[in-house]
Amino acid sequence: MAEEANPISYEDLDAIEDEFQDIDTQILRTQYELSADVYAKRAQAVARIPHFWPLVLEQAPPEIDQYILPQDSRIFGESLINLEVRRPELGGNKGLGDPRSLAFKFEFRPNDDFEDAVLEKTFWYRRARDGWTGLVSEPVKINWKSGKDITQGLTDMAKALFDARRKAGNMTATDLPEYTALRNKVESWDALNTSFFTWFGSVSGRRYVTEEESIKANEDHAALKARRAAGETVEFPEETDSDDDEAAEVHQGGDELAISIAEDLWPNATRFFTQAQEIEEMSDADFEEDEDEDDEDEAVDIRALVRDKSGSSRAARHADEPPNKKLKR
Amino acid sequence: MAEEANPISYEDLDAIEDEFQDIDTQILRTQYELSADVYAKRAQAVARIPHFWPLVLEQAPPEIDQYILPQDSRIFGESLINLEVRRPELGGNKGLGDPRSLAFKFEFRPNDDFEDAVLEKTFWYRRARDGWTGLVSEPVKINWKSGKDITQGLTDMAKALFDARRKAGNMTATDLPEYTALRNKVESWDALNTSFFTWFGSVSGRRYVTEEESIKANEDHAALKARRAAGETVEFPEETDSDDDEAAEVHQGGDELAISIAEDLWPNATRFFTQAQEIEEMSDADFEEDEDEDDEDEAVDIRALVRDKSGSSRAARHADEPPNKKLKR
Repeated sequence: MAEEANPISYEDLDAIEDEFQDIDTQILRTQYELSADVYAKRAQAVARIPHFWPLVLEQAPPEIDQYILPQDSRIFGESLINLEVRRPELGGNKGLGDPRSLAFKFEFRPNDDFEDAVLEKTFWYRRARDGWTGLVSEPVKINWKSGKDITQGLTDMAKALFDARRKAGNMTATDLPEYTALRNKVESWDALNTSFFTWFGSVSGRRYVTEEESIKANEDHAALKARRAAGETVEFPEETDSDDDEAAEVHQGGDELAISIAEDLWPNATRFFTQAQEIEEMSDADFEEDEDEDDEDEAVDIRALVRDKSGSSRAARHADEPPNKKLKR
Repeated sequence: MAEEANPISYEDLDAIEDEFQDIDTQILRTQYELSADVYAKRAQAVARIPHFWPLVLEQAPPEIDQYILPQDSRIFGESLINLEVRRPELGGNKGLGDPRSLAFKFEFRPNDDFEDAVLEKTFWYRRARDGWTGLVSEPVKINWKSGKDITQGLTDMAKALFDARRKAGNMTATDLPEYTALRNKVESWDALNTSFFTWFGSVSGRRYVTEEESIKANEDHAALKARRAAGETVEFPEETDSDDDEAAEVHQGGDELAISIAEDLWPNATRFFTQAQEIEEMSDADFEEDEDEDDEDEAVDIRALVRDKSGSSRAARHADEPPNKKLKR
């Protein structure tokens, strides 16, 4: 490299990017701490607004909305009573954990679809031994009522494969009957033709990385960074490609969906709710002339589902009982 | 409201949103301070990589790329030597200003298109008396060389109208010949059929708000917030619609473009640069069999423009002279 006085290498740029990333995680931590009280205040407020979260989900941005099929809208509208997003490695004793890990708690009223009052899905930010970093998640069992599984068995199969792999002590095993079964099933499915609830069965955009592997890989990475910072030329591990697990992943892009919910739907929930209200008002105006035409065409419309049982939304708004979701201005 | 024990109002939700916004601006400030040194380090590094910024712009995300027309690509590829994004109300004496204001400095080598070595565009985050908040900007004069104005006179006309309005002491005046001229011209143009450089003439998504008006409006807003916090029921001003200025705006969405550059292109520049390099490598592979087919079809391809003058990019990479943009691995 004698030709160039001060050659810049990709490694130099990578080192700078690492510094940016360290700042970003620090900022995520600070933001989480600073906003915890305001999120608690919001939770208290929206708990007094019936159907707040179903209405928010109805106005979800495209990256989320694409996964909400009519059956999902129906379940949210009928049963979802609360949503909570946390960063499970922050707060309390684990305050110094990775702020990129995400936990989602969906609370439901008793319903005809599943037994669970709470579905909680956690994504852990982990580093694989080959240097890949990203979110991984353990499939969540949904106790569907008989004949009600709108994921067509996918969440159960994802859970079964995960448990079988854990038992076998090999999280990438492909020689298990549970793997073959799920792979064959997944071939004819993807996230776009099955339920949002399939997301609860998702594992990773790549492969599952255990906590143990991640701790070791982070230690190795930190050691390499320290040597690089000391001026040494070091070689970071190269990511290897593996399609095996994509073939048995019940929800492609489950990690991206998690990030969209945490970084867009969750912080902007009030805005999406307000949008839903405004659309409702416009829709009410449309209905002025035909109040008798009820909600028959809107089976998948959460706004219809959350209307007063007595009839159209206009009826609900003008009833003597307080409207079930309109706020006073 | 006797019917409801604890009615939640839109104002309650708004108050919570205001708290989130205060935290967001505080976080922006913290992030800016924490990352200033790393941005300085990056600037030093990329200054030694020829064509870094043209390559970054080539890989710009769609919200930016949609405004970069072939002529713009050519100018960036031939002449752009540096880009810098700042938050002009932060740092130094003005450290307590609004972190949402943005300044963009484009540096060019001497070229055949315009006389300017630097084009600097600033967007100020301001509040209007009716409560609207957003970015406003003064049009920037570009000293085009004779017959070279690829904005077809739009930047000059935007500047002329702005100056005439300032002279008239009325930033929304529509009874000026400069207004009529620009409105008539804009009717047949929008940002999508004219140059990226038109953005330098943009004013606002709505109307220009002076610093004086903004300071007053912020004071009024703070007073209302304080009264609301004290439990008083207050009425915030309602935003009024006005289409007048949209009709004379040379770049619809100039504020959004500014935000995309500041919040996506700027922090992720190294990633976009690396993508451009990877595409270049793939493209090189494609060219292995037909090195004689030169870059004729790629007049608008910055990668073509930044290749060694001696011929194809393969030739550049294999020349004895150090390649003009490949980094050592």
